[in-house]
Amino acid sequence: MTARLEDWLATEQQLASATPDPAPTQEPDRRSGLDRLQAVLRGHGPAAPIGRTLDFRLVEVEHGRAVFQGAPAQAHYNPLGSVHGGWFAALLDSAVGCAVHSTLAAGRAYTTLELKVNYVRALTDRVARVRAVGEVIHVGRRVATAEARLFGPDDRLYAHATTTCLVFDAEAAS
Amino acid sequence: MTARLEDWLATEQQLASATPDPAPTQEPDRRSGLDRLQAVLRGHGPAAPIGRTLDFRLVEVEHGRAVFQGAPAQAHYNPLGSVHGGWFAALLDSAVGCAVHSTLAAGRAYTTLELKVNYVRALTDRVARVRAVGEVIHVGRRVATAEARLFGPDDRLYAHATTTCLVFDAEAAS
Amino acid sequence: MTARLEDWLATEQQLASATPDPAPTQEPDRRSGLDRLQAVLRGHGPAAPIGRTLDFRLVEVEHGRAVFQGAPAQAHYNPLGSVHGGWFAALLDSAVGCAVHSTLAAGRAYTTLELKVNYVRALTDRVARVRAVGEVIHVGRRVATAEARLFGPDDRLYAHATTTCLVFDAEAAS
Amino acid sequence: MTARLEDWLATEQQLASATPDPAPTQEPDRRSGLDRLQAVLRGHGPAAPIGRTLDFRLVEVEHGRAVFQGAPAQAHYNPLGSVHGGWFAALLDSAVGCAVHSTLAAGRAYTTLELKVNYVRALTDRVARVRAVGEVIHVGRRVATAEARLFGPDDRLYAHATTTCLVFDAEAAS
Repeated sequence: MTARLEDWLATEQQLASATPDPAPTQEPDRRSGLDRLQAVLRGHGPAAPIGRTLDFRLVEVEHGRAVFQGAPAQAHYNPLGSVHGGWFAALLDSAVGCAVHSTLAAGRAYTTLELKVNYVRALTDRVARVRAVGEVIHVGRRVATAEARLFGPDDRLYAHATTTCLVFDAEAAS
Repeated sequence: MTARLEDWLATEQQLASATPDPAPTQEPDRRSGLDRLQAVLRGHGPAAPIGRTLDFRLVEVEHGRAVFQGAPAQAHYNPLGSVHGGWFAALLDSAVGCAVHSTLAAGRAYTTLELKVNYVRALTDRVARVRAVGEVIHVGRRVATAEARLFGPDDRLYAHATTTCLVFDAEAAS
Repeated sequence: MTARLEDWLATEQQLASATPDPAPTQEPDRRSGLDRLQAVLRGHGPAAPIGRTLDFRLVEVEHGRAVFQGAPAQAHYNPLGSVHGGWFAALLDSAVGCAVHSTLAAGRAYTTLELKVNYVRALTDRVARVRAVGEVIHVGRRVATAEARLFGPDDRLYAHATTTCLVFDAEAAS
Repeated sequence: MTARLEDWLATEQQLASATPDPAPTQEPDRRSGLDRLQAVLRGHGPAAPIGRTLDFRLVEVEHGRAVFQGAPAQAHYNPLGSVHGGWFAALLDSAVGCAVHSTLAAGRAYTTLELKVNYVRALTDRVARVRAVGEVIHVGRRVATAEARLFGPDDRLYAHATTTCLVFDAEAAS
């Protein structure tokens, strides 16, 4: 096992086993996107059910950047014997969406309008973990764009993506 | 329940419970893409493990067109309380990929280079089933493109996608 | 020359030479998108300067659909001896954008957020004219999507595209 | 005028006025993509006719990276009074395509399969010059991907793009 994979697994372990901090006392809608994502990271929900179903989770977040880590498995395979494009898309969509979310002030929300994924290499469960690193490109008053790359512990690139998100006042969403 | 949803559920039931035909005797690589997909439809594997994990399956296939049906569920949700973009992408990717596959002669294979998904509306488990209908746009000697739309029994559109696939001689893939 | 190409050239000729109707008396911002595009079609500006530069123009418009016609020429070539991808993109962008515009009520405006173009075949000036036909897929309160195909008089497909547009109250654009 | 814009204009001037080096003696198809692009940069054709029509040109190229510079003008406008999306697409398409081309060995060629452009900000002729900087993301045996950003002398971002290209043996193109 490489040093980097060890590091990735240790991060996962630590996040999974940490005693949650006392829950934030502020109402969710009084917290910035970054505050909310950091609460998720520390075990204060809500985490995404899709993450449990597809075995991936948020492992890092800062302003404008979010990282998801996942474990490729046979349950994610297409009939051809490698990970299905939908699994890549789930991690990449999460990474770009949370990168955008991490830049939003309290009271602001976002929704994903489109995602384009490029598939670069086949992926199998011989790769223990992959990471999708999302970063914002542009955040405007009404629209944000971001990109993400999905790679293994040896830096091999498996896929990359860009997204367009709508950003708006949370009350305007109804 | 609408007549259309009843119809969709009946199709699903029938495909799940049908006694498989005798397995095709031809080697998989002697069969056309359409023959192989029709075998999958009739219960002769291999179906996609991702389909079991995310609760969707192939329900129709003909030359240049493939339809997948899925059941939105809380296990597919993002933290915001609706179906995660990765679930849409999994169905749409399957629909466009199999639409392309259905046009390939024996000995030919494909791989997906990119997929762009537009998310049009939030989806929840109040919608019992959705369908992703994929159709080829262009199939050339080296490249194929296709599109798909994902909608509910009342024809409400939730997402749509286009793809670019590489097509090649199966032996050239190694 | 095929009957269809003759037809396309006749339309172009007729639009170019028609005596403009009396100019619409309503203020532009009191007119719907369709009214404004029909005025452009009948020679009441403003037409797009890019259309003169790249030799293409609007030839048909109805609710949710817009058609642009262009003349491939050596001035549009890449160094490889065929029409540059930017020329395809200009026609396709116009077709999808105006398809969206044609659905907007007076006082509403749009802006293009993203465009994805698939290049299917090389194009040269041996093809006298091509058409880009744009059609809306979904028009919501804040976002619209549309698609377009670019083909010759013999129905050969050269490229296709999808777009995501933001739609908003014109006064909100400032 | 900012120092950076002065610098950009000086580069343009220098490339336009330089006495071409003696033309390369090697046959074009014996030269690598980078060699061919550097010849174009130094005035040994063929430059792209579309560049003359739309007023942009190659200003830098190295392995995996190509930069185009253009002058926004009213001739590139849409009817709304800003630069048309097709002009952005032409520069971005050139930047990503040449970034890919710059990595190819002699005897190899490429063709663009798709381009996705995100439009971030309106652009007018008050911005004297913009640059589209293209960089490869992945170059494989059959497929390459690249990205580009288009920005002004003050680093304001106007648009960005990604592409998928097919790469192949030049003789296989026929």
